[in-house]
Amino acid sequence: MTETQFDVLAIGNAIVDVIAQADEAFLTRHQVPKGTMSLIDSERAESLYEAMGPGIEMSGGSAGNTVAGVAALGGRAAYVGKVRDDWLGKVFTHDIRAAGVRFETTMAEQGPPTARSLILVTPDAERSMNTYLGACVELGPDDVDPEVVAQAKVTYLEGYLWDPAGGKAAFRKASRLAQASGRKVALSLSDPFCVDRYRDEFRDFVGEGVDVLFANEEEICSLYQAPDFDAALQAVRGHCEIAVLTRGVHGSVVVTGDEVHVIDAETVAKVVDTTGAGDLFAAGFLFGITNGRDLPTAARIGSLAAAEVVAHYGARPEASLKRLLEARGL
Amino acid sequence: MTETQFDVLAIGNAIVDVIAQADEAFLTRHQVPKGTMSLIDSERAESLYEAMGPGIEMSGGSAGNTVAGVAALGGRAAYVGKVRDDWLGKVFTHDIRAAGVRFETTMAEQGPPTARSLILVTPDAERSMNTYLGACVELGPDDVDPEVVAQAKVTYLEGYLWDPAGGKAAFRKASRLAQASGRKVALSLSDPFCVDRYRDEFRDFVGEGVDVLFANEEEICSLYQAPDFDAALQAVRGHCEIAVLTRGVHGSVVVTGDEVHVIDAETVAKVVDTTGAGDLFAAGFLFGITNGRDLPTAARIGSLAAAEVVAHYGARPEASLKRLLEARGL
Repeated sequence: MTETQFDVLAIGNAIVDVIAQADEAFLTRHQVPKGTMSLIDSERAESLYEAMGPGIEMSGGSAGNTVAGVAALGGRAAYVGKVRDDWLGKVFTHDIRAAGVRFETTMAEQGPPTARSLILVTPDAERSMNTYLGACVELGPDDVDPEVVAQAKVTYLEGYLWDPAGGKAAFRKASRLAQASGRKVALSLSDPFCVDRYRDEFRDFVGEGVDVLFANEEEICSLYQAPDFDAALQAVRGHCEIAVLTRGVHGSVVVTGDEVHVIDAETVAKVVDTTGAGDLFAAGFLFGITNGRDLPTAARIGSLAAAEVVAHYGARPEASLKRLLEARGL
Repeated sequence: MTETQFDVLAIGNAIVDVIAQADEAFLTRHQVPKGTMSLIDSERAESLYEAMGPGIEMSGGSAGNTVAGVAALGGRAAYVGKVRDDWLGKVFTHDIRAAGVRFETTMAEQGPPTARSLILVTPDAERSMNTYLGACVELGPDDVDPEVVAQAKVTYLEGYLWDPAGGKAAFRKASRLAQASGRKVALSLSDPFCVDRYRDEFRDFVGEGVDVLFANEEEICSLYQAPDFDAALQAVRGHCEIAVLTRGVHGSVVVTGDEVHVIDAETVAKVVDTTGAGDLFAAGFLFGITNGRDLPTAARIGSLAAAEVVAHYGARPEASLKRLLEARGL
């Protein structure tokens, strides 16, 4: 394989998170589905924001969190996503670049404002996300630079990208380009309801174009409409080169055609906010496989990165993941 | 005393914090004075933001943090401060109201944007603040509603208010009104360099119009140009009704004409970010004295509130201070 400029290129919905604490009664009263991502329109974004508690604003977006994690681990990362030329767009751009990620997608100069996700964190540390896609609907295949795809060992796509119409086209273009350049394609299934919305397309895509698939238990069961985790594991085995299945506190399972690795989760003293757990697991795993680690080690790096992010509010790492990694000899 | 509607009315610079980690070398390279608040112009705000790491945006402002703390303790609080009708102004307004604080100051519809403070937190948890005052310069005496001052047991003023010209006039009007209504006036000295800028005026004001003075060790020494803490303590004794002197990990000292109480600091497992420590100490103390606690108990509530806020990033409480208080029987 020729030299590359990036370990991971990620394409996703560029979102700023607005994180607030909420109790179960608030979720019920405002009809917020718990533990998943719901798409909301601008009016709902206004009214829900009005009702919710004091917020912390932090750059987010699933794939954005992942590349920020890759960079925090010492990897080389690039990102494609669409923001508008407004305050939140400036914040998103600043944060991802300041994290060390190449981000050159042209800002939208008109149309809807930068996307935000109103994230309600309940006392059990579960997050319920309410996403207004805003400027993300402006992303399209023209935003995918063939040069950058060819220069990345892995192109990572979030399933959420299928929600905005142009995202899907960008997604398909990127995966074709990556395959044509002999690079790997990774996909995160993102969310069980997202899988429900696009099950058949995702299933076809996994079989045709995905080298590394990330999914949690609910998502992989939903993808194959499997009755339980073991059935889903058998279904995905061999359907793509590597399937990385995360199970929260029960750790993760890495499945290839002829190997199954079961990896324990890291112990976390106090889980505060699970936002970004899956994104950072993917960051660690992708960093690992693009930097010469074997599959179980890559999954352990994923666990370590996920453990850091759930110990505080927000979906991007606060601690130096690189130092954590060194301290653990991974 | 007649019935009141508020325990504490605070007047301050309405600021959104942008918090990022930085190392000592960054502070040196960008000439950021460590541990204090520096005023910066819009160009410096742009260039420093560009250079700094990924940020967390959270409502701040010294007096704003204090009233958010009072409300989180279960107290009744109101706030006066000036934002613009932009994104950050909306964020500030949402957050302080969502915290349970009355906030009705008219938004500026023109002029500079909402204020922000670029806060760099070093690995020793010290914060160095770089504040662009923006719309705060539009605050003036007309923003002080005599009705609300008359309805508040304590009117609390931050020393930082003397930086914008109109702030000082608002400050003076509010303290006159409070005195005329037989209410208390509290003042925080805010910052040692702020004391340097306005030493004579502050000293006169403390003697004439302040019932409760908050200062840390450096600030009180600066106010009286005292060689050491004990000399400063003797100088402030009797100069105002109650002086509350905070000493970080060494706890606090409450001084009246004939009493001196020495209160230990709360133990904090890991101090992450000292931003807001003094603001939350003031919140606890003011909540205490306006809710029937004696001076040492009020200071202990202050310590408890300060301990919560230094254990995480950001200057507003994450935990329910009311529950912490109940758990401790304070």
